[in-house]
Amino acid sequence: MRPKATIREVGLRDGLQLVKSFLPTDKKVAWCKEEVAAGLREIEATSFVPAKVVPQFADAAEVAREAVAVDKLTVAALVPNFKGAVRGFEAGVHKINYVLSASETHNLANVRRPVEESLADFKRIIAERNARGLTTKIVGAIATAFGCTIQGQVPEREVLRLVECLTEAGSDEIALADTVGYANPAQIKRIFSAAASMFSGPIYAHFHDTRGLGLANVAAAADVGITRFDASIGGLGGCPFAPGASGNIDTEDTAFLLESMGFDTGLDIQKLVALRGKVAQWLPDERVGGMIAKAGLPKTFALAS
Amino acid sequence: MRPKATIREVGLRDGLQLVKSFLPTDKKVAWCKEEVAAGLREIEATSFVPAKVVPQFADAAEVAREAVAVDKLTVAALVPNFKGAVRGFEAGVHKINYVLSASETHNLANVRRPVEESLADFKRIIAERNARGLTTKIVGAIATAFGCTIQGQVPEREVLRLVECLTEAGSDEIALADTVGYANPAQIKRIFSAAASMFSGPIYAHFHDTRGLGLANVAAAADVGITRFDASIGGLGGCPFAPGASGNIDTEDTAFLLESMGFDTGLDIQKLVALRGKVAQWLPDERVGGMIAKAGLPKTFALAS
Repeated sequence: MRPKATIREVGLRDGLQLVKSFLPTDKKVAWCKEEVAAGLREIEATSFVPAKVVPQFADAAEVAREAVAVDKLTVAALVPNFKGAVRGFEAGVHKINYVLSASETHNLANVRRPVEESLADFKRIIAERNARGLTTKIVGAIATAFGCTIQGQVPEREVLRLVECLTEAGSDEIALADTVGYANPAQIKRIFSAAASMFSGPIYAHFHDTRGLGLANVAAAADVGITRFDASIGGLGGCPFAPGASGNIDTEDTAFLLESMGFDTGLDIQKLVALRGKVAQWLPDERVGGMIAKAGLPKTFALAS
Repeated sequence: MRPKATIREVGLRDGLQLVKSFLPTDKKVAWCKEEVAAGLREIEATSFVPAKVVPQFADAAEVAREAVAVDKLTVAALVPNFKGAVRGFEAGVHKINYVLSASETHNLANVRRPVEESLADFKRIIAERNARGLTTKIVGAIATAFGCTIQGQVPEREVLRLVECLTEAGSDEIALADTVGYANPAQIKRIFSAAASMFSGPIYAHFHDTRGLGLANVAAAADVGITRFDASIGGLGGCPFAPGASGNIDTEDTAFLLESMGFDTGLDIQKLVALRGKVAQWLPDERVGGMIAKAGLPKTFALAS
């Protein structure tokens, strides 16, 4: 029995949020279904942000409702505040990823308030979930946990203080995000090890490949026992401050890495590569990356897995 | 004091060997000098193969002689056989990288004879070096050590048998090469650990990024004590069987990874990025990659190093 590792697709959220052309709702739902056919079991399907801020997510409620109807799929949605969480509850998503930043300046830029206000809203969201009698999982997702393009260094003790606050507030899961692609393997091992010693529930790693270290960071996190990773088909999701640079780590390549290392991801990489081809057709103006799609799986791959 | 890690530039050899347009000798020598200015201390400057096989290396002897004259630079050359080694001795290179493959079928395709004949020639080369009274270092470089596009699986015991044979024959250094980009971090840790337990001299890791795992493999090798890495400016060096896929790991990005992990590479990454820009101008038809060149160093980088 190989140990299991889980990849969660975030292309529909983190991948699409900077894409200017609106991807029609039926394509978004088709994307969900193709992921399930490839073996994926969890997707971050949308973001409950105001449509005037990110027009791409104007159909968030509809996407969420249709995704929830897809068999075998856990549907998560990102929310930046209490109001977004209420929209998520009403759309019936299984999981709310509530984002706040370890960098105060990034939190102010991203969700327009201090970190302490974000923490207070997190508690209100948990209370609201409980008051509604829902089983929706609430996840504390810490952005810029490994550094910030605005602030620079983010103290590790601040990241771990947030892990502690989220744990005390009753977070069902924790996610640590390298939002800007600053993390390195040594740092990954330190911070995830410390976080895992403080929080006993599921911990997700969310890495960007902006500076080429995305998969090295996945391997490092796996080395210290982390087995849940966010990724985006074709590495979709650029950074507005780094033209030509890639965004999220690539779902297919991450699956290849983890399977090669002996993990069972449950994913069919060839089907993911086929979906990548469709996404590239749907979004002709976007950079769709991915190394396995170009080079093909090794001849030795079937033997390794 | 940070631990040291060494990057050896192989762009002039592995990077150029598939490049159709001839890079003039003065550009090759300028490349060597710019590397030294960026802090690099060892370069694989050329390959002593017949000019009719690889016209790019028709100037091998001249490049070698001029590179040897560059201050502070250890000059290595790849050789596929005894004749190539003699040319290397005559050109005065400091180091001979003698390549043989762990895959029998790859050795037949690459140097046109069985592995046992390659091993016999290795012993002749060492005897010739000794007979000439030279101090040239002779390196046994094992290609396809992690899998082969022709043969598929390459047994680890065969790789380790070759390490043993090269050690017994008096190899000054060993290199293990993932020639086709098949290696994964778990395999890297196993095989390099085993090799290091058999050979006490310097061990070089030579990785290709064909399937995106190049830097993950560097981090994994560093985890088991390997601190010497081959890399190519801008990841130059494609694979004829994988159009669009990258070749060698990128010198600048590898330096960024190692420095971020706390190693002292002695390299100035901004100068490497500037050299990458020149190489891209010299070779306008080639894919010149590299993530740091696109995204820039993190704001946190100076603090980390």
